[in-house]
Amino acid sequence: MNARTLDPAHHLIEKEPYYEAVGDEILLFEAAWRQQIPVLLKGPTGCGKTRFMEHMAWRLKRPLITVSCHDDLTASDLVGRYLVKGGETVWVDGPLTRAVRAGGICYLDEVVEARKDTMVVIHPLADDRRTLPMEKLGLEVEAPPEFCLAISYNPGYQSVLKDLKQSTRQRFVALEFDYPSAELERRIVATESGVSEAVASNLVRFAQMTRNLKGSGLEEGASTRLLVHAGKLIADGVSPVSACKAAVAQAVTDDDDMLKAIQELSSSIF
Amino acid sequence: MNARTLDPAHHLIEKEPYYEAVGDEILLFEAAWRQQIPVLLKGPTGCGKTRFMEHMAWRLKRPLITVSCHDDLTASDLVGRYLVKGGETVWVDGPLTRAVRAGGICYLDEVVEARKDTMVVIHPLADDRRTLPMEKLGLEVEAPPEFCLAISYNPGYQSVLKDLKQSTRQRFVALEFDYPSAELERRIVATESGVSEAVASNLVRFAQMTRNLKGSGLEEGASTRLLVHAGKLIADGVSPVSACKAAVAQAVTDDDDMLKAIQELSSSIF
Amino acid sequence: MNARTLDPAHHLIEKEPYYEAVGDEILLFEAAWRQQIPVLLKGPTGCGKTRFMEHMAWRLKRPLITVSCHDDLTASDLVGRYLVKGGETVWVDGPLTRAVRAGGICYLDEVVEARKDTMVVIHPLADDRRTLPMEKLGLEVEAPPEFCLAISYNPGYQSVLKDLKQSTRQRFVALEFDYPSAELERRIVATESGVSEAVASNLVRFAQMTRNLKGSGLEEGASTRLLVHAGKLIADGVSPVSACKAAVAQAVTDDDDMLKAIQELSSSIF
Amino acid sequence: MNARTLDPAHHLIEKEPYYEAVGDEILLFEAAWRQQIPVLLKGPTGCGKTRFMEHMAWRLKRPLITVSCHDDLTASDLVGRYLVKGGETVWVDGPLTRAVRAGGICYLDEVVEARKDTMVVIHPLADDRRTLPMEKLGLEVEAPPEFCLAISYNPGYQSVLKDLKQSTRQRFVALEFDYPSAELERRIVATESGVSEAVASNLVRFAQMTRNLKGSGLEEGASTRLLVHAGKLIADGVSPVSACKAAVAQAVTDDDDMLKAIQELSSSIF
Amino acid sequence: MNARTLDPAHHLIEKEPYYEAVGDEILLFEAAWRQQIPVLLKGPTGCGKTRFMEHMAWRLKRPLITVSCHDDLTASDLVGRYLVKGGETVWVDGPLTRAVRAGGICYLDEVVEARKDTMVVIHPLADDRRTLPMEKLGLEVEAPPEFCLAISYNPGYQSVLKDLKQSTRQRFVALEFDYPSAELERRIVATESGVSEAVASNLVRFAQMTRNLKGSGLEEGASTRLLVHAGKLIADGVSPVSACKAAVAQAVTDDDDMLKAIQELSSSIF
Amino acid sequence: MNARTLDPAHHLIEKEPYYEAVGDEILLFEAAWRQQIPVLLKGPTGCGKTRFMEHMAWRLKRPLITVSCHDDLTASDLVGRYLVKGGETVWVDGPLTRAVRAGGICYLDEVVEARKDTMVVIHPLADDRRTLPMEKLGLEVEAPPEFCLAISYNPGYQSVLKDLKQSTRQRFVALEFDYPSAELERRIVATESGVSEAVASNLVRFAQMTRNLKGSGLEEGASTRLLVHAGKLIADGVSPVSACKAAVAQAVTDDDDMLKAIQELSSSIF
Repeated sequence: MNARTLDPAHHLIEKEPYYEAVGDEILLFEAAWRQQIPVLLKGPTGCGKTRFMEHMAWRLKRPLITVSCHDDLTASDLVGRYLVKGGETVWVDGPLTRAVRAGGICYLDEVVEARKDTMVVIHPLADDRRTLPMEKLGLEVEAPPEFCLAISYNPGYQSVLKDLKQSTRQRFVALEFDYPSAELERRIVATESGVSEAVASNLVRFAQMTRNLKGSGLEEGASTRLLVHAGKLIADGVSPVSACKAAVAQAVTDDDDMLKAIQELSSSIF
Repeated sequence: MNARTLDPAHHLIEKEPYYEAVGDEILLFEAAWRQQIPVLLKGPTGCGKTRFMEHMAWRLKRPLITVSCHDDLTASDLVGRYLVKGGETVWVDGPLTRAVRAGGICYLDEVVEARKDTMVVIHPLADDRRTLPMEKLGLEVEAPPEFCLAISYNPGYQSVLKDLKQSTRQRFVALEFDYPSAELERRIVATESGVSEAVASNLVRFAQMTRNLKGSGLEEGASTRLLVHAGKLIADGVSPVSACKAAVAQAVTDDDDMLKAIQELSSSIF
Repeated sequence: MNARTLDPAHHLIEKEPYYEAVGDEILLFEAAWRQQIPVLLKGPTGCGKTRFMEHMAWRLKRPLITVSCHDDLTASDLVGRYLVKGGETVWVDGPLTRAVRAGGICYLDEVVEARKDTMVVIHPLADDRRTLPMEKLGLEVEAPPEFCLAISYNPGYQSVLKDLKQSTRQRFVALEFDYPSAELERRIVATESGVSEAVASNLVRFAQMTRNLKGSGLEEGASTRLLVHAGKLIADGVSPVSACKAAVAQAVTDDDDMLKAIQELSSSIF
Repeated sequence: MNARTLDPAHHLIEKEPYYEAVGDEILLFEAAWRQQIPVLLKGPTGCGKTRFMEHMAWRLKRPLITVSCHDDLTASDLVGRYLVKGGETVWVDGPLTRAVRAGGICYLDEVVEARKDTMVVIHPLADDRRTLPMEKLGLEVEAPPEFCLAISYNPGYQSVLKDLKQSTRQRFVALEFDYPSAELERRIVATESGVSEAVASNLVRFAQMTRNLKGSGLEEGASTRLLVHAGKLIADGVSPVSACKAAVAQAVTDDDDMLKAIQELSSSIF
Repeated sequence: MNARTLDPAHHLIEKEPYYEAVGDEILLFEAAWRQQIPVLLKGPTGCGKTRFMEHMAWRLKRPLITVSCHDDLTASDLVGRYLVKGGETVWVDGPLTRAVRAGGICYLDEVVEARKDTMVVIHPLADDRRTLPMEKLGLEVEAPPEFCLAISYNPGYQSVLKDLKQSTRQRFVALEFDYPSAELERRIVATESGVSEAVASNLVRFAQMTRNLKGSGLEEGASTRLLVHAGKLIADGVSPVSACKAAVAQAVTDDDDMLKAIQELSSSIF
Repeated sequence: MNARTLDPAHHLIEKEPYYEAVGDEILLFEAAWRQQIPVLLKGPTGCGKTRFMEHMAWRLKRPLITVSCHDDLTASDLVGRYLVKGGETVWVDGPLTRAVRAGGICYLDEVVEARKDTMVVIHPLADDRRTLPMEKLGLEVEAPPEFCLAISYNPGYQSVLKDLKQSTRQRFVALEFDYPSAELERRIVATESGVSEAVASNLVRFAQMTRNLKGSGLEEGASTRLLVHAGKLIADGVSPVSACKAAVAQAVTDDDDMLKAIQELSSSIF
C-alpha cells in the first residue's frame, strides 16, 4: 500500500499533464490568476476540466488540491476541525486551508453540491478581502498572491435548489468547456488508450453521433473519457462493438430503445 | 456462535462459486480490471449480480468485500472512524479502506441508496487518481493495481432523487445483467435447490410466465433466487403449488388479483 | 416490580401458546426454517401474527425476540452499541445480535416502519451469507442454522414511501394471514376472554358485519383482539352494547356516522 | 419556591378531584383497569379529560403521571436516560418508567404529537406482554397489575401525518368525551370560578351558542375551561361582556367577523 | 462594556415605562394575574405589546424576563441545561425557570415561532397545575402565585404550520392590541422622538394613510415604532421626506410601485 | 502566510476606502448611528453595499466585522461557544459579540440566509434594549452607544421561505442601493482596474445594455464589480471581447441564446 500525508508539497505536479488547448482558456486563466480573481469552470462531465486544472497547476508550479463536493460537505470539511488523536485534541487543517497556507490552487469540483455554509468560507476568499476566516482557531488567514480558488459546475444539471447564486458567481471569471474538436479528440484518445489512429478516429465519429442524440432522450453524449475507456478495453482485446457497449452505451443510458440505437451506431462504424 | 474478524484475508473465496456465464461478462470484467477501470453492474433483483462478483473474486484471487448501501450510509461508514474502545480512541478502517489496503474487490451493492457524501470517496478512486482520501487521518491512500471498485444498481427502481449522476456513472464500465436462459436457469435451480430436472424445468416455465406479467401490474417477475426458494421448499416436502405461492407469488406482490393470476399459472403447471 | 435481563434464555416460551392453524402456515414455516430461508408475515392488525410467532418459537424450542419497528429505529438499535456505564465503555448487544448469538428467532414487527439502514444488517442475514456484520466491533457473526429471521408487514397500510423494496422482499418466503374462520374465532374469543360460547358467537357475528364495512369508510374491521377486549369487559360486568362501543366501535373509527352504524349493528345483535 | 422530586409517591392525589360523570365512563375505566387493557380518551380540548384522569387516579388510589406529548418527545424522554451529574454518569428514569415501577397510571396527553419511536415502548406495554423494554439498561420491566396506560387524542385535529395508526389504537379500549350537560356545566362553572348560579347559567347559555357556530368558521366552541376563566375574571370585578371577550372570544378565534358575532352573543345575554 | 448577570433581580423595572392605555387592558391583565390565568397578547408588529409588558411588570413590581421565540428555540433553551464550565458540569437555569423561581413575569414573544417541545413546558404552567417539569434535574417546580406567563402572537402572520393550537390557546386569557388613537399616537411620537407636536401630528397622518394601503399590496402599515424612528431622524437633521422614506417606506415594503405610492403620501404632507 | 487574530482592533480601517456617494446615504447612516437605530441595506449583488460599509466604518472610526450569512449559520456562530483547546474548555466570542464588546460595526451580509435562531440575538440588539443575551455565559451584554448593527439583503432574490419578517425589518432604518450613474461608474472602473477612461466608458455602456436585458431572461445585469473584473483582464492583456465574455457574460448566465446576445453587445462596442 502506498499512503502519503496530505502535505501540499506532495501535490506539486512534476510531469506535464497532457492537455491541448481549445481556445484562449490558458491565457485567460493565467491573467485571472495574476489579477487574483477566482475562476469558475463550466461544462459537461468528462470534457477535461480536471485535466485542465492539473495542467494549469503544473504550468504555474502550484500544488493542486482537489475537493469533490457533495451534499454533506460542510465548511468544517474544507477549513479543518479539532480531532481527538491518542487522547489529545489537535487541530487538523482542511484541504482549503492547506491550499491557502501553501499558496496553492484549491479546486472545488461541482461546488453547488456542497452544503450552503461552504459559501461563507468561499466568499471572503473570492473578493477583495482574500481572507479565510477560521472562527474555531480565532484566526483570519490572508491568502498569498499565489493562491488561486477555482470551482466548477455543470450548467446542464443544476436544479432550482442547486444553482449557483448570483452573489457567488459574480465573484468569478468564468471559462466554458466543451468537447474538443474531432482532430484533437482523436489525438487524445489514441495517446491515452493506446489504440491506433484509425480506431481512435472511429471512436470519435461514434461519440459525435451519440452527442447528436442529446435532447432526443439522451442526457449527455459520450465524453472523451468514455472514448478512452472504450479504447483501453479494445487495446486489451475486447471487440470494438462490445467495448462501445460496455464503456459508452451502458454508461450513458439505461433506456432500452436508446441502448439499441447507440449499439446500431457502433455496429455501423466497426 | 461463529464470529470472524473483518480482516480481508478472511474474505478470500476458496471454493469456486457456481456461476454460468450468459455472455462475455467475464471477459469484460477481466479487461476492465487489468485496465484499472471500475465496473458498474446493472440489472434486476436476484438475477445473479452478487454471485457473479463472488465468482470473479474467486477467479481473480482477490478478497471480496461487499457493502449493501442504504439511506443512512455515510462516507465514514465506508472509510472508517475513530472509536472509543476501553477508554482509548482507536482508528477502525471501514470496508472500503480495508479493500483498498488489501488490493481486494470492493462491491457496493445498490450504491444509489447511499448518502451523497459516499460519492466524494468513490470519485477519486474511480478515475485516474485511484486514491482514497482519508481526511480524518490526514492521509491519502493510493490503491494498488489489484484493487477493483464495483458498484451495482437496478435501473428499474431509480427515482429522480435516487439516480446515478452522469458525473459518477461515466467513470465506470457498465455490464448489464438479466435473467439467464431457460436451459441455464433450469440447471441453476436443480443444482441449488435439490429438486429434479423436471421440477426445475416447470419452475422455470412458471417464472417466465410471471415475467410476462411485468408491466401489467407486477413490479418484477420471479427471479432465479425465488425459484431456488420454491425448489428448496418442494425438496423439503411442501407441495409445488403451496411452495410457489409462499416463495414466489406472495414474495413479488400484495395485490389480490395478481396473486390469484399467479396462483392459476402455477396450478396450470403443477 | 418484576425486571429481568434481556438474556435470550429468558425468552424461551415454556407453555404452549394457544394457536389454531388456519392453513398450512405451520408446515411452511417449519420447512423454511429447516431450509434457512427467512420468513415474511403479511396481514392486517390483530389477526394473530404475533401469536403465531410465539407458537412457532415454542414449537421449535427457540427463544423469541420481538422488536416493534418504528420511524426512528436504526441499525444500531438492532445490532448494539457502546454505552458508558459507571465511567466505563461497554458494548451492549442489540436484540438482533442477541437472537443471532443464541440461535433464536428474531421477529421484526412492521419492519417497513424502521429507518432504511436496518436493511443493511438484514440483507446479509437474509441471503446465502447468513452473516451479521458488526462494523463497530470489527466482527462478522455467522448465524447458526437454528437462527431464524422473521419480519411482518401490513400490505393495506403501506404508502409509496414505506413499501418493502423488491430487493428486500424477494429474500423471504411469505405467509399471508387473515381473520380466522367464524368457528375458530368463536373458540378463541371464548377461551381468551372468559365469556360464554353464545356471547362469543354474537361477538364474532358482530365483527363480521364490521368487516363488511371495510371500504365503505372503515379503514379496518374489528380484529380478533378487539373481540377479546369486548369479551373481557362483558365478563367484568359491562353491558355488551357498551363493551362493543368502547372496545370495538370507538377503537376502529372516529367518524360519527360510522360510529352510529356500528352501534346499530351491535344493538341489533345484543 | 416550592420544588419536589419526581418520586411517584408525590403524585398520589389525596383530595377528591371534583368530577361529575356524564355516562358510564367511570365504570368502563374501572373494568378496563381490572382487565389490564389500556385506555384511550377521545374528545375536544378542555372538556374534562385531564380532570377525569385525576379523578380516576384518586378513585383507584394510584399515582398519576401526566406527560404532554409534542413533536420532539422521544422514547428516551419517556423511558429515561443516562445523565452526567457532578462528573458521574447516572441513570434517570423517565416518567413512563417511574409510572410502571410504581404501579401508577401514566397518562400520555395528545399522544399523536409525539415522535414515532414512542410507539415502540408503548406497544409491548399495551398488549398481553405488558412489558417495558429498557434497551439501554439491558432490562425488560414487567408492569404490575395495578399499572395503567392511558392516552388521549382529539379526533377533530388529526391530519394524515398525525393520525393514530390502527396497529396502535386497536390495543386500547376507547372512551369518548364531550361537553357536559347544561345543568352539570352550570354546577362546574359556579363551583370552580365562584360566580353565582345565575351568572354561571348565563355563561353556559353563551357557550352553547358558540358551540353552534362550530363548522361555520369556528374551529372549536367555548370549552368548560374557558367558562371557568370568564367566571374567575367576573368574580374579580371584570364586567361580564369584557370577561367573555378576553376569556372566550379572543381565546377561540382571530377572525374579526367571528369575534364580532361572538361579542354580540355575549352582549345579548349580559 | 456593560455586562450584567441574568439574575432576575436585575430585571426589575425601576422607572415607570411610558404607556398610555387604550382600553381596559391594564384592568384585565391585573385580574388575570390575580386569578393566576396566563395571558396571550395578540396584535401587529410594533404596536406596543412589549412596552405594555414592561409597564405591567413595573406596575406589579415583578421582574420581567422576555424571550424572543424562533424556529430553533427548544424546551432546554427555556428550562435550562447542564453546561461544562472549567471542566465541571454545572446546571444553568433557562429564562423560564429563572422567572418561575423568582415569581416574575415570563414573556414569550411570538411563541408560535418556537419548536413544538416548548409547549410541553408551557402547558403544565398554563393550567391548574402551575408546575414546571424539569426532567433533567428530576424536579418539578411549583410556580408561586406571583408568577405570570404571558405570550404574544401576531394573528396576521400565522400559517397553517405555525398556528397556535386550540389546546394551547384555550389555556390563556387573550388581550388584543392595535394601533393607538391619533391623539395618543401623536403624544407617543413627540415624547419618544423629540420632534414638535406639529411634526408628530403629520407623521401620524402619514401612518394612517399607509395603514389604509394594507390589503392593497402592503403587508402591514407603518407601526408606531417606525414613526418614532422617522421622528428621531428628523430631530437629527434629516429632511422629513427622506426620513419617511428610510424609516417607513423602505422598512415596510420592497415593491417599487408601493414605494412610490408611499413616497407620494409623505410628499403630500411634508 | 499572513494570519492575524480576530481581535476587533485589527478590523479598524486605516486608509479611506474609495466610495462615491449616490444620494444622501452617508448622511442617513450617520443620523441612524447617532440615534442608535440599526440599518438595513437593500440592493442587488455587487453594487457597492460592502464598500459602503467599509467607507462608513472608516468615516466613523469604528472596527468593521462582516459576516456572510448562510443556511447553516446559527446563533452560536454569531455569539460564541465553548471550545476544547489543549484539553481545556475556553469560551470563544463570536463575531457579533466581538463587535458589541468593541463598540464596532457588525455587518451581517444577506441576513435572510441565516438560520432563524439568529433573529433571537438580533432582536434585543435592534430595539430599545440594545442588549446581547449570552445564555451560555449567563450574561447579558449592553451595547455601547458606538455599536452599530447593519444587515443587508437583496429583495430581488427572496422567496417566501427566505423573506425578512415584518417583526424584524420594522426594527431597522432601510437604505436602498442601486447601480451608480454612468459618470460615477466610469470613474470607479477606471480607478479600480487600471484601464483608460475610454475603455471604462465602453465597459459601462456595455453594462447598461446588459441591465436592460433583465426581465428578458437575465436574472441580473452586469454589476460594477464584474466591470472591474473585465477591466483587470483587459489591463493584463486579454482582448476586450474575450474579457467581457469571461468576466461578464459567462458570469451572469448559462443560457446559450443569452450568451450570444451578450457577446453581440460587446462585439458591437469593442
